Amino acid sequence: MANHLPKGFHAAGVYSGVKTMPNTLDLSLLLSDRPAVAAGVYTQNIVCGAPVKFSRDLTPADSIRAVVINSGVANACTGDQGYRDTESMAAKVTEVCKLDEKQVLVMSTGIIGEMLPMEKINAGIEAAASQLGDSEESLIAAARGMMTTDTRHKICYREIDLNGPVRLCGMAKGAAMIGPNMATMLALVMTDAKLKPSDAQAGLADAADESFNCISVDGHTSTSDTVLLLANGAAGGPVLEGRDLAKFQATLVEVCEDLAQSIPADGEGASHLITVEVHGCKTRKGAVKIAKTIADSPLVKTAVAGNDPNWGRIVSAAGYAGISFDPTKVSLLVNGLLLYEHGAPVEFDAEMVSCSMRENRDTNLVLLLDEGTASARFWTTDLTTEYVRLNADYHT
Amino acid sequence: MANHLPKGFHAAGVYSGVKTMPNTLDLSLLLSDRPAVAAGVYTQNIVCGAPVKFSRDLTPADSIRAVVINSGVANACTGDQGYRDTESMAAKVTEVCKLDEKQVLVMSTGIIGEMLPMEKINAGIEAAASQLGDSEESLIAAARGMMTTDTRHKICYREIDLNGPVRLCGMAKGAAMIGPNMATMLALVMTDAKLKPSDAQAGLADAADESFNCISVDGHTSTSDTVLLLANGAAGGPVLEGRDLAKFQATLVEVCEDLAQSIPADGEGASHLITVEVHGCKTRKGAVKIAKTIADSPLVKTAVAGNDPNWGRIVSAAGYAGISFDPTKVSLLVNGLLLYEHGAPVEFDAEMVSCSMRENRDTNLVLLLDEGTASARFWTTDLTTEYVRLNADYHT
Repeated sequence: MANHLPKGFHAAGVYSGVKTMPNTLDLSLLLSDRPAVAAGVYTQNIVCGAPVKFSRDLTPADSIRAVVINSGVANACTGDQGYRDTESMAAKVTEVCKLDEKQVLVMSTGIIGEMLPMEKINAGIEAAASQLGDSEESLIAAARGMMTTDTRHKICYREIDLNGPVRLCGMAKGAAMIGPNMATMLALVMTDAKLKPSDAQAGLADAADESFNCISVDGHTSTSDTVLLLANGAAGGPVLEGRDLAKFQATLVEVCEDLAQSIPADGEGASHLITVEVHGCKTRKGAVKIAKTIADSPLVKTAVAGNDPNWGRIVSAAGYAGISFDPTKVSLLVNGLLLYEHGAPVEFDAEMVSCSMRENRDTNLVLLLDEGTASARFWTTDLTTEYVRLNADYHT
Repeated sequence: MANHLPKGFHAAGVYSGVKTMPNTLDLSLLLSDRPAVAAGVYTQNIVCGAPVKFSRDLTPADSIRAVVINSGVANACTGDQGYRDTESMAAKVTEVCKLDEKQVLVMSTGIIGEMLPMEKINAGIEAAASQLGDSEESLIAAARGMMTTDTRHKICYREIDLNGPVRLCGMAKGAAMIGPNMATMLALVMTDAKLKPSDAQAGLADAADESFNCISVDGHTSTSDTVLLLANGAAGGPVLEGRDLAKFQATLVEVCEDLAQSIPADGEGASHLITVEVHGCKTRKGAVKIAKTIADSPLVKTAVAGNDPNWGRIVSAAGYAGISFDPTKVSLLVNGLLLYEHGAPVEFDAEMVSCSMRENRDTNLVLLLDEGTASARFWTTDLTTEYVRLNADYHT
């Protein structure tokens, strides 16, 4: 299915001159031709950038018209100047797109430690506003304008039938390798469905919990992570409720999962995308905690990089997650092959497991606890020398 | 001060044939000529090896005579065979040293996933018993017999005057780089002081909290981590109380800190030993949590490897530690140089800071929160390509 903007949305991505490499894109503008319901989910980091505070104060909302995103230099400043720059970006969009006050949300990503070059950004906003379009090309330009160390743009499109077609289109940035930038994750899902603000907010929070909150590249929570949902109702029809709302929600989760997975999958420095599944837990929260602990373990991540089916590292990581379980009931499968059963290693062909790890970019770790029915899935990458080189060697 | 065994202690380290490299040592035996008060602090991992269960069940105690330690292959088994092997090691020591039941503690470290070769180990115990001595050479042999990926043995000796000399001698194993082994940390402190079992246990727990629980190499809690204290009273005099006990305790903390620091300091794969200090916190617990979160961040660790004074990574790691604080009051010093003050970066000579990082193996990160008076110190290593290579590349 080709990627589309949902009805009533326009997009642009331009080069404003913030990124040092010319002919890249570093400023994106998304505009809805009518007021949209908007919801947001933001970083839990106490230290958060000004755009996070600014957008968080405005959502949920029922009359957002635009989202502006700059990349290259992050407005990660917690002080007054950072906030003034954010307000100034929103004011510029309001001016050039002839909007009312409080109709613009802002996101920012890139290198930390510099102030935004506001002249370039203001000029970029003017250029973007003049280039707004609803073609796939415009959508891709917007998705590329938010990229930092990403090697490819990330777009996910779905169309569903709810007494007429309803479209969802998500775009995201974030990569397994961080380079000189923070591993900031930004995502925006646009839809022409009609939603109540409270449903949009609750639905986005749930979807983020199953997707963006279940990826981990380096365990580091960025100061700018932001996920936004804009629903402008341009598809027509009544506000979604009941079964229609549930169907919409399932698709929203699908879009978010697709975008979330694409983040660890996009790692120059990574050689494996690791999926950690934990089943048979007492609670969902416990399952997530165990899955995240395994996914964040450098010993597990280096073992996968070395194609080493090291069950000891995986099982012991589960053991220090802080969730109580009976270790004698634990079993573990790697790429579908049983390595450990009811608390003890089984005989297995280590060479075969290692070979299946070497020959597949995806590594699947499944831990079975036999304590209950809750489960969780977490995505991460392996830890390679290339990852370290890319994250360390720019100051030698 | 030369290293000594405290009065009444004898030590040996032998090659039992478990390690594949000959002429290394892989079995250590420590014997007190009289019953000793013993205390233990053990891994919090739910999945723990049989020797941990065995020794934990016996401590605190008032009549321990010996500690036996094997390295090369870890008895990390949680099942029956692992427990029987541990009992069998203790029984062998009891037999050859002519002890009573329940006078032997056991530790084990090395590769996970194999059963102990009990014939070799039993022969090793016999050999060790025949070589017990109280020279510095015997002490070093015992310290070397517990090594796995360590590049050097770790011993710390202190003598204090408590109405006559009292000696403390600690030995430890563990290294910043893990290789094919788990990053198991084992330590044993022997003293000829006379202690009540309850004071020994409480004192060891407190000392471990300020030392072994404040180091982090890869955030992975091993299944075998064990710290033991043996106090045999051979120095003479009464049971320590009041000021004497406090003086002893301060020295015990000193010994434990010295040993703990030597673990991350011993990293083939590491190029920096990082000390993270957090001051001005509301609670000690919060300070430890923030220090540990910074110390465990791969982004902080790779930045230090690259000699990059990346305040953004350090401050944002503090922000996601889960401890509330006011980000506008935060300041940060790297190697004594102020980079960030009251929530905002200050002008600093990045080249000079980078140079001081490049030219010193020790990197000192000091975070000031201005919220209270509690503080914590945490030690870790940087994250280098060499670390990853050593942890990944043995299965290619």
